[in-house]
Amino acid sequence: MPNPPPAWVQALKPASPQGTELLTQERAQSNIDVDTLGDLLHTKEALKKQDEILSVLKSEKVFDKSRNHVLGRTEKIQLALARGKRLQQLKKAHNWSDEDVHVANDLVSEPTPYGLHASMFLVTLREQGTPEQHKLFYERARNYEIIGCYAQTELGHGSNVRGLETTATWDPSDQTFIIHSPTLTASKWWIGSLGRTANHAVVMAQLYIGGKNYGPHPFVVQIRDMETHQPLENVYVGDIGPKFGYNTMDNGFLLFNKLKIPHVNMLARFAQVDKATNKYIRPASPSLMYGTMTWVRSNIVLQAGGVLARGVTIAVRYCAVRRQFQDRDAKANAEENQVLNYKMVQIRLLPLLAAMYALHFTGRGMMRLYEENQERMKAAAQADQEKRGAGPEQLRAGSDLLADLHATSCGLKALASTTAGEGLEVCRRACGGHGYSNYSGIGPWYADYLPTLTWEGDNYMLTQQVARYLLKSARAVLAGKGTANDTSRILQAYLARRDKGASFDILGNDADIVAAFAWRTAHLTFETLKYRDVEKRSWNSLLINFWRLSTALSQYLVVKNFYEAVNSPEIRSSLDKDTASTLRSLFRLHALHTLDREASEFFSSAAVTVRQIGLTQTSEVPKLLDEIRPHAVRLVDSWKIPDWQLDSALGRSDGDVYPDLFKRASMQNPVNDLVFDPYPWNENVLKNAGEIKSKL
Amino acid sequence: MPNPPPAWVQALKPASPQGTELLTQERAQSNIDVDTLGDLLHTKEALKKQDEILSVLKSEKVFDKSRNHVLGRTEKIQLALARGKRLQQLKKAHNWSDEDVHVANDLVSEPTPYGLHASMFLVTLREQGTPEQHKLFYERARNYEIIGCYAQTELGHGSNVRGLETTATWDPSDQTFIIHSPTLTASKWWIGSLGRTANHAVVMAQLYIGGKNYGPHPFVVQIRDMETHQPLENVYVGDIGPKFGYNTMDNGFLLFNKLKIPHVNMLARFAQVDKATNKYIRPASPSLMYGTMTWVRSNIVLQAGGVLARGVTIAVRYCAVRRQFQDRDAKANAEENQVLNYKMVQIRLLPLLAAMYALHFTGRGMMRLYEENQERMKAAAQADQEKRGAGPEQLRAGSDLLADLHATSCGLKALASTTAGEGLEVCRRACGGHGYSNYSGIGPWYADYLPTLTWEGDNYMLTQQVARYLLKSARAVLAGKGTANDTSRILQAYLARRDKGASFDILGNDADIVAAFAWRTAHLTFETLKYRDVEKRSWNSLLINFWRLSTALSQYLVVKNFYEAVNSPEIRSSLDKDTASTLRSLFRLHALHTLDREASEFFSSAAVTVRQIGLTQTSEVPKLLDEIRPHAVRLVDSWKIPDWQLDSALGRSDGDVYPDLFKRASMQNPVNDLVFDPYPWNENVLKNAGEIKSKL
Repeated sequence: MPNPPPAWVQALKPASPQGTELLTQERAQSNIDVDTLGDLLHTKEALKKQDEILSVLKSEKVFDKSRNHVLGRTEKIQLALARGKRLQQLKKAHNWSDEDVHVANDLVSEPTPYGLHASMFLVTLREQGTPEQHKLFYERARNYEIIGCYAQTELGHGSNVRGLETTATWDPSDQTFIIHSPTLTASKWWIGSLGRTANHAVVMAQLYIGGKNYGPHPFVVQIRDMETHQPLENVYVGDIGPKFGYNTMDNGFLLFNKLKIPHVNMLARFAQVDKATNKYIRPASPSLMYGTMTWVRSNIVLQAGGVLARGVTIAVRYCAVRRQFQDRDAKANAEENQVLNYKMVQIRLLPLLAAMYALHFTGRGMMRLYEENQERMKAAAQADQEKRGAGPEQLRAGSDLLADLHATSCGLKALASTTAGEGLEVCRRACGGHGYSNYSGIGPWYADYLPTLTWEGDNYMLTQQVARYLLKSARAVLAGKGTANDTSRILQAYLARRDKGASFDILGNDADIVAAFAWRTAHLTFETLKYRDVEKRSWNSLLINFWRLSTALSQYLVVKNFYEAVNSPEIRSSLDKDTASTLRSLFRLHALHTLDREASEFFSSAAVTVRQIGLTQTSEVPKLLDEIRPHAVRLVDSWKIPDWQLDSALGRSDGDVYPDLFKRASMQNPVNDLVFDPYPWNENVLKNAGEIKSKL
Repeated sequence: MPNPPPAWVQALKPASPQGTELLTQERAQSNIDVDTLGDLLHTKEALKKQDEILSVLKSEKVFDKSRNHVLGRTEKIQLALARGKRLQQLKKAHNWSDEDVHVANDLVSEPTPYGLHASMFLVTLREQGTPEQHKLFYERARNYEIIGCYAQTELGHGSNVRGLETTATWDPSDQTFIIHSPTLTASKWWIGSLGRTANHAVVMAQLYIGGKNYGPHPFVVQIRDMETHQPLENVYVGDIGPKFGYNTMDNGFLLFNKLKIPHVNMLARFAQVDKATNKYIRPASPSLMYGTMTWVRSNIVLQAGGVLARGVTIAVRYCAVRRQFQDRDAKANAEENQVLNYKMVQIRLLPLLAAMYALHFTGRGMMRLYEENQERMKAAAQADQEKRGAGPEQLRAGSDLLADLHATSCGLKALASTTAGEGLEVCRRACGGHGYSNYSGIGPWYADYLPTLTWEGDNYMLTQQVARYLLKSARAVLAGKGTANDTSRILQAYLARRDKGASFDILGNDADIVAAFAWRTAHLTFETLKYRDVEKRSWNSLLINFWRLSTALSQYLVVKNFYEAVNSPEIRSSLDKDTASTLRSLFRLHALHTLDREASEFFSSAAVTVRQIGLTQTSEVPKLLDEIRPHAVRLVDSWKIPDWQLDSALGRSDGDVYPDLFKRASMQNPVNDLVFDPYPWNENVLKNAGEIKSKL
């Protein structure tokens, strides 16, 4: 690394006012109670735990983040593995729970080569293995004796699981399965932790018995030698190469040439092949998986709030420190204005500040609903088994609610991850030129997050499931058979009032805003139902309508969840009046800004008038921006993201932006070790090539 | 690099149908004349030249692209310099023009450390230097004896040039300028080619004479030794560190500690300090720079079409090869459907296909207008000087048009670069999971392009200039003093018809679509003028309105330029009927899709009715998608982007997507040389660490 700068450079300070002074002013002008709000968002215990783990990580040299941006991929992934190993060692030393390791991973903030082992591999073994298989695979995997991955996606097949080409053929002669890749497109692809790390894989393959295909099933397959870590014979495996982000993860490919595995390696909790009869034994309860996906997607919604919060924290603090131009109406020789004071910056950042809160409360709401329902269903199943009480009815009600949660979680996953992903890029651009520097902390974070828009269901694909569910619900409601859930309720409410028309008071009444979002969703649903059922339009021709429909429902749900959170007794009682009132402003800004962006659907469904939209745009939204502006820094402070985690010169909590940018550029940047020979006629690129090579 | 795969892997083929077959079918179902359309877009000569240069580059090992994705920044930038040097050598060997080198750079497709030397440094010396300075600096710079950069932006100061802190103080005692950085925020920052490459810089600094500030002026400053390439004393210079993209460029920082430079180093064509009197001599004609910026921005508009075309070419071809799911209305056991057949994919990609043509024709139109006007003004100036004819009036008309061009080029630069940047990300996502691989060719291209949204005027900042011009024009029109340009014309047309109202036939008449865009722009202009002049709202409170206004004007201009191109005799006569008709469908798709996305402004200005928007959305746009779909592959083929330039496994012109992805991952990916030790209790990350190290 370069030498320190000369004394005359070290003596320089940024022009006044200093960033530290500006952030102090920002915090002084707001009375938001940062600690109380932080506890409300994350709980006191979680924040305490985060502090403890952070102090452990900071003292470990391997987690030093200053090298992250300068390494090539080959070096980057080795460092990531070293970090993954160290985390496991720390887990043992400090007796950390799995959840604690999760917190540590969040603080380190990069994908680790153990990622898919620790998540999908372990979960699949646990959920789909028999007790015998738990002993054989799961327990060793938990101890990292077996390192695994979950191999579903193929080179030619992503979302369409039924199209998978890899086969598992039951060979009754020696009671084995033959795992085989018949084509190049059958190659497993994108599989996290597979490329260089895993020695086992759960492989999803088409099960064939006696020539008949029983669809995709999970098989545990050893792929590398436990000692040498070399691929086994008839296994071809490797890393799929550099990606837009996620380069600390070894996403891999995998091909099989008629590899034999024993009978016990088919995960058999839900389906199996009977060794005695060579017969397929049917799955027990496939709908259980349904629940897991719902939970995973609700979690993505919750996380989306936190993901966005990082970008917003950085951008809000930096835009309070950055000053550029005088206000045009100000007197001559006025000081340069903080960028955050410009309305064009506020309209980009403050709705995202509102959205991060909205997504957080929505994710929380979804997960609470899901867990309550799981509890109820467990009790009902118990009652059913013991033949007492209203077991069956409650089971049915529970599964109705689960179906509703499943569908809505699809739409919300799409909306939330798109909002977070695109929102991060808005934050980056709001930081102007310096946003493009990796020292901003936004770019790499954005690049690593982007896969979330594609995995666990591509965000566009998912919207079909939402629309299908809405159409089904609408048909039931029209037939007088609506179930007791929120979706049916909003469809019924629309039908009951359709002739009278809507007259929502979106500017005066918060509940009416929620009702307007519900109305628009119901209107689009019945309109689309007419296209499909009456006009018999093709499914394909309606995909765009379905996407609109899913977006409408999901926006309604976020607005509703945010509204309910802001008005919940829990929150109202824990916050002082001013903080509660600012939270309400955030709700209104989120809802009305969304409504403005989607104005044409609100018009055409007659949920609002042109005049209402005009007022929203030119008067109400600007007023809300003014209300929230003074609290912006404290509202991001409340999210309690440690500086070490942010790793951002722009987003430092102390506002000392420019010295940090300068220090990183001048002192932590190995490019400055290179002395170029700049003349085109000299072949040598460097004047100090020998010196540089010897450092490697 | 890894060994070749075993024989059983090499024998594998993708599942049928092959990508090559699918693209052959695509091309067979359309009769678009690819060569004629290609010539129309780029000219036959340019395409021929591109081929010649391409074949030279392909034969040079240093330009091999397979290493691009795997190098760390330190290695990447050395390779980029080596490539830059080689291009200069090839230029000499093949007698290439500057334009030819530009073509070569486009084919190589990465920023080069010589980039800012070859553009802004040379241009500034040429445009702002005196003949004496040309000899002293420009001629040596053209020969790469001097390597330079253009140092304007500072750590604390971007768009606001008047806020620059670096000073150049005239010292009459020894007739030198003292260049000084009074603070840390005065550090030059983001300066391309400065970090490691340049030995000179044009430094923009506040000129002080006798204690008085005369504003920012350009000074040529030597910063590094011509032999050792070490920084001179009292100069602190370096690279600013890793960025989201553009990592092959050494954007740099630069600080001065009272460095003395001779009088001749102030670029003196437009302003100078008189040595005899120590007096400042006023700038001759600052409005000339005005023209340069207009030209630069028009060029960005034109380029934006080509930038977007790369993403669309890749995504359209890949989505024609990629198959996923059966059509839901198809019979059971139907083959999987090409992704490009799904309406939800079409609505994302085909409007971008239309936009790339729209931006291309708009950029062309702008540049033609600009050049015609320059010619006319030159002639008028000549006439004026020789005191004959209508010199003065024509000069005034020319400068009116130039002002119009300047303002519209600001708005168009913002719209076009945003469209291209965001469009590339849409293309990447439309490629699903594989879009995230760098082998898609989209991600790094997108990351390198993003600065365009910020530089040459931040896209949000620029919209204020457009709005200011529109308000000024509206005031003039209201006062009966409108000038003879298009902006005044559309404002006048609106006023003339405002009471009668608009009744544009957007579904039946193409010219009416253009008129509807003009109407909406004029409506927003007068509405905003009312806020500012009658209601006296603050400038800051109107920034969001200004942005909307600029977007509306720019969208109108793109729609208008595209309309005029499609209907121009030149194009109509050179294309066969079917190609011309498809081009018209592209125009209609671009215009109506834009109109649909901005529907609420078209409603509220009463340019269209709710019913018209409904029909656009549910009937006209889907019809246009159907019309264009069969021609999609040929329409991107016409852009004639060589495979070598695209460097994309997904966008290969032969459609052989999967074998290419597989080859790159397995054979060109050094991560596959690493043998991990996967167990957390073993400290070593690699089992073959010795072997790997010795390879470095």
